[in-house]
Amino acid sequence: MIIILRVDAADADICAVEQKIRDMGLEPHVSKGIQRIVIGAIGDENKVDKEVLEALPCVENVVRVMKPYKIVSRDSHHENTIIDVAGIKVGGQEIQVIAGPCSVETAEQMEQSATAVATAGCSMMRGGAFKPRSSPYAFQGVGVDGLEMFQTAAKTHNLPIVTELMDVRMLDTFLEHNVDVIQIGTRNMQNFDLLKEVGKVQTPVILKRGMSATISEWLMAAEYIAANGNHNIIFCERGVRSFETAYRNMLDVTAIPVLKRETHLPVIVDPSHAGGKAWMVPDLSRAAIAAGADGLLIEVHPRPDEAWCDADQALNPEQLNTLMGELRGIAQVIGRSL
Amino acid sequence: MIIILRVDAADADICAVEQKIRDMGLEPHVSKGIQRIVIGAIGDENKVDKEVLEALPCVENVVRVMKPYKIVSRDSHHENTIIDVAGIKVGGQEIQVIAGPCSVETAEQMEQSATAVATAGCSMMRGGAFKPRSSPYAFQGVGVDGLEMFQTAAKTHNLPIVTELMDVRMLDTFLEHNVDVIQIGTRNMQNFDLLKEVGKVQTPVILKRGMSATISEWLMAAEYIAANGNHNIIFCERGVRSFETAYRNMLDVTAIPVLKRETHLPVIVDPSHAGGKAWMVPDLSRAAIAAGADGLLIEVHPRPDEAWCDADQALNPEQLNTLMGELRGIAQVIGRSL
Amino acid sequence: MIIILRVDAADADICAVEQKIRDMGLEPHVSKGIQRIVIGAIGDENKVDKEVLEALPCVENVVRVMKPYKIVSRDSHHENTIIDVAGIKVGGQEIQVIAGPCSVETAEQMEQSATAVATAGCSMMRGGAFKPRSSPYAFQGVGVDGLEMFQTAAKTHNLPIVTELMDVRMLDTFLEHNVDVIQIGTRNMQNFDLLKEVGKVQTPVILKRGMSATISEWLMAAEYIAANGNHNIIFCERGVRSFETAYRNMLDVTAIPVLKRETHLPVIVDPSHAGGKAWMVPDLSRAAIAAGADGLLIEVHPRPDEAWCDADQALNPEQLNTLMGELRGIAQVIGRSL
Amino acid sequence: MIIILRVDAADADICAVEQKIRDMGLEPHVSKGIQRIVIGAIGDENKVDKEVLEALPCVENVVRVMKPYKIVSRDSHHENTIIDVAGIKVGGQEIQVIAGPCSVETAEQMEQSATAVATAGCSMMRGGAFKPRSSPYAFQGVGVDGLEMFQTAAKTHNLPIVTELMDVRMLDTFLEHNVDVIQIGTRNMQNFDLLKEVGKVQTPVILKRGMSATISEWLMAAEYIAANGNHNIIFCERGVRSFETAYRNMLDVTAIPVLKRETHLPVIVDPSHAGGKAWMVPDLSRAAIAAGADGLLIEVHPRPDEAWCDADQALNPEQLNTLMGELRGIAQVIGRSL
Repeated sequence: MIIILRVDAADADICAVEQKIRDMGLEPHVSKGIQRIVIGAIGDENKVDKEVLEALPCVENVVRVMKPYKIVSRDSHHENTIIDVAGIKVGGQEIQVIAGPCSVETAEQMEQSATAVATAGCSMMRGGAFKPRSSPYAFQGVGVDGLEMFQTAAKTHNLPIVTELMDVRMLDTFLEHNVDVIQIGTRNMQNFDLLKEVGKVQTPVILKRGMSATISEWLMAAEYIAANGNHNIIFCERGVRSFETAYRNMLDVTAIPVLKRETHLPVIVDPSHAGGKAWMVPDLSRAAIAAGADGLLIEVHPRPDEAWCDADQALNPEQLNTLMGELRGIAQVIGRSL
Repeated sequence: MIIILRVDAADADICAVEQKIRDMGLEPHVSKGIQRIVIGAIGDENKVDKEVLEALPCVENVVRVMKPYKIVSRDSHHENTIIDVAGIKVGGQEIQVIAGPCSVETAEQMEQSATAVATAGCSMMRGGAFKPRSSPYAFQGVGVDGLEMFQTAAKTHNLPIVTELMDVRMLDTFLEHNVDVIQIGTRNMQNFDLLKEVGKVQTPVILKRGMSATISEWLMAAEYIAANGNHNIIFCERGVRSFETAYRNMLDVTAIPVLKRETHLPVIVDPSHAGGKAWMVPDLSRAAIAAGADGLLIEVHPRPDEAWCDADQALNPEQLNTLMGELRGIAQVIGRSL
Repeated sequence: MIIILRVDAADADICAVEQKIRDMGLEPHVSKGIQRIVIGAIGDENKVDKEVLEALPCVENVVRVMKPYKIVSRDSHHENTIIDVAGIKVGGQEIQVIAGPCSVETAEQMEQSATAVATAGCSMMRGGAFKPRSSPYAFQGVGVDGLEMFQTAAKTHNLPIVTELMDVRMLDTFLEHNVDVIQIGTRNMQNFDLLKEVGKVQTPVILKRGMSATISEWLMAAEYIAANGNHNIIFCERGVRSFETAYRNMLDVTAIPVLKRETHLPVIVDPSHAGGKAWMVPDLSRAAIAAGADGLLIEVHPRPDEAWCDADQALNPEQLNTLMGELRGIAQVIGRSL
Repeated sequence: MIIILRVDAADADICAVEQKIRDMGLEPHVSKGIQRIVIGAIGDENKVDKEVLEALPCVENVVRVMKPYKIVSRDSHHENTIIDVAGIKVGGQEIQVIAGPCSVETAEQMEQSATAVATAGCSMMRGGAFKPRSSPYAFQGVGVDGLEMFQTAAKTHNLPIVTELMDVRMLDTFLEHNVDVIQIGTRNMQNFDLLKEVGKVQTPVILKRGMSATISEWLMAAEYIAANGNHNIIFCERGVRSFETAYRNMLDVTAIPVLKRETHLPVIVDPSHAGGKAWMVPDLSRAAIAAGADGLLIEVHPRPDEAWCDADQALNPEQLNTLMGELRGIAQVIGRSL
């Protein structure tokens, strides 16, 4: 940890900072520049609160030297981690596309969706039985029955299922229904009690980025899961909040290379929630794969304009098919397969 | 609801939109301008999903006419709502200042804090027994024992207590410990299951704004609580995420008059989490009251630089005292008391 | 234009709004919904200020129906516009890559840069003789001499040149030096006097997006140039300001499909200024092309770590070569060439 | 300057960094922590480009120790600077309110405005003869004649005038018309050629914050003016771009105390352009003064709903009068006068 003092710091101030550093179990190391005093604190900075040093009136700024995340950091594990979802490998040379409707509606809609997903060559299926909706008056998902409809449709086509867990009290039900991948949504990225609980099971977790989470906060949210024992974590970029109103969220394509550098875990992208309009999805999907994403999470619906939620952002089966062809071409260009 | 068609919309497109509107139970009303067709949909637009209309290829844009929030809207209740917290009125002519430490640490620290809060003339006390921390390795709060220490210290000084609920499974414990006001933190503003549960009790709720929540989303989060039966809701602005790095969050002072116009419920401000530095707190506190806030939520600690969390943002007892004097002066200028 | 009235609007209010609309030369058209009155104003809304209507106390919201941009709008010109830069076509089937150093330094550096650019198969060259630097104490560019060095090096390799104009008083000098494409930088996107002047010549203009400009403001900035007579405008996305600190700017890849839908003019991307680090440039470049960009503006330097500015973001000649190979592959997948 | 190396930095990397630091004329100082190597570079860091060090592959992060701004920094001048505008002191104990219409329209409107401004007790008058408008089709200001109308009206009431300079070629005209304070608008905060030119005269400058400028960039823009010789600079916060759409810009009230700490120069606030609606102006004005601003820049118009621009944000004369009374009360509470 590096402590930069204010220009007017006196000798007594320096002593006080040194003492505080020693009290925390680190070793101070004073360095006098031409304008300012800088004090290095040698030791395990994860043991100390930087705020305690920032609270001292003579301190201008405190800079951490070590990364706050450990288990998820590439510093701790150099090779890419490949996560096994019922035999499907996420994070390896092969790119995985997960597709399906925004929400589970009926058995028939799920069967048609599963057919579309499998036909297009996607490897897993998504669908929400519990929906986080901005309005309490909007459709909230069909609930537990939806998990059953989903499994029935997906099994026929041999597709592992991905579905969102919102309430910690529902985790056992998810496990009983053999959910293959638990999705933690953007609004729950820092629901720490939920993170701790999914950290105690071994089911793979897709951790969506919070609406305005920094990459560092996102890595720390994953660290909550990892620190509780579950290392099967897949990051999912889904666009962040911005000042732009021409679309829903701003897809942060730069987050892909940054995450791939900072963590050994897989990174996928949800182009549907990013742009919020079906016509943008192919462009954003291609961009994500070209930028190095390990997979995609795409909305598809047998009849998008009849979807019970997010009707304007689902592809129809033909559009998904066409897109998959393009994505295979791009995967090949960058030495991957799909 | 108003549907603006694309320039190239044909007659068949117009018919399709009209039919869709009728299917939803509303009445279409076509209006031809010099460049574009605009279709009004007359009826209860809360019954319909705007996305279904936006999914039609001929539709450029869909504009809601009605506000999505009802119970919390000033349209539904013109007078200010005054919330009673153990006899203390929030949202009326009198401004209420809630102060206390970031987290409950020890019985002694809570007793000293309570003394400082009461001495300065604040009307309620804050303190966290469960802390939402970015890092799983940071201090997570003292837990249930903290609620007891808190009540013991606060009761001596006749101060109602405000404390944060993070986990829905802990609600009964909060009720057993007679928590006077349940705080929902910024990371849980859209934890809808938690909102539904606190909506089923009658304990007043302080609903902090999500880190990058729009005012409309925030009102809708409150609507989740209200729709479940609990109308005792206090909004708390605490700064939002921005591009600026010179301080922690950007205090959105404009949100105060906007909320006071949109809702009949009280609005308070947390200047401590906004700026993130103790030296900014007095300036931000005065600004909040001058802009019309109904109260403040301030961090104070008997010895800030020894605080177990957020050491750099707590005022000490003397600073709180001085600030209260200034706030009384401002309250008077705008015809209120404190 | 659509005027949505407040819930409590009285009959007299409605009359006042109708009168105001007629005063502006438009025709009012009142429509009574179940909760609110909506008034359509039929006519050329570009003649009127929406603020005048918003100033009326009974007005809740005013929504424009027409796009504020005309010449640059795809509504006014359905086909893609192809801009000819000394025989090179921008905006057509072929993708164009413009590369070169951040700033012109020496004749030798420019010759080596030009060789690298031409060898890699790029079609135009970039380089700044005048540099907009955040600090007055930083290197400000070599000035007019730089234009000469630049032209000398570029001509040898038959490369048209792209260089930034910051000061309206320097336009004649740019014309005298036969600058092929004038770049308007992010800080000058709304320097309206500069836009008007480059609108009066026919030299193609690359208009970079303002640091936090909405797509609509950006289109309006282009409209300034177009309205003055110069329709040779190329949009350049270069990342926008965000809350994220892990990189410099957030590349808004979604802006590409949105712009291609809204305007007939070409859209290119600057991946170097977006990410701000050389190691991110290949990923961002591939993403931009995959998302449909018509070209790229990339920084390359013969010896990046000796560059006089932005040393950390330039590719070296080999990296540029490798990248061009990948981009050719992606271009082919999406039916384009490079 | 502090250079933090990557975890895998080898001895040869350390030597390379040390050599680079010496080449720049600074002295390296290596410090080995338990996980990482940190190298301090002792000397005048303003002479070096941090990007050159960041370009080295073994470097994780480079942290500046010195502030990049000098003349405007409070480190270089501890006392508040008071700027004299025709005898009126800005930045001292007395708070100054500058009011006037958005744009100069007619001689009559200016005379009525000046009367309103003087009657309310404001000390200076604002008004734009040249208007930066998003649309080329909108009213662009009355031009040079406006300066004359403005001076005529203002002189009668003994009010110094504040008006915006957009085009560097117009500076002489401003000087000829004895403009008392030159305003640099938000869109020109980083129009460096304009900043350099106003730096060469001694007329006081109001420097508005760029739409999404960080406080540090804003201070550096002021440094451009100061470095050219003009130290009469007044900062003006006017709201920044955000994700919120309920109002125009987000007033950054926290910028007031931060600036007052970082610079010795005066700081004022424009509440009219921040909120964008007249009804928000009193609340925001009070907040700004309560937070420590040295003055305000407010729009007032004799008949707001007939204003030629920004009709929805101007106060009428009575509203200005009432507001001034409240502001006097707040000034007194914080030991100032108005």
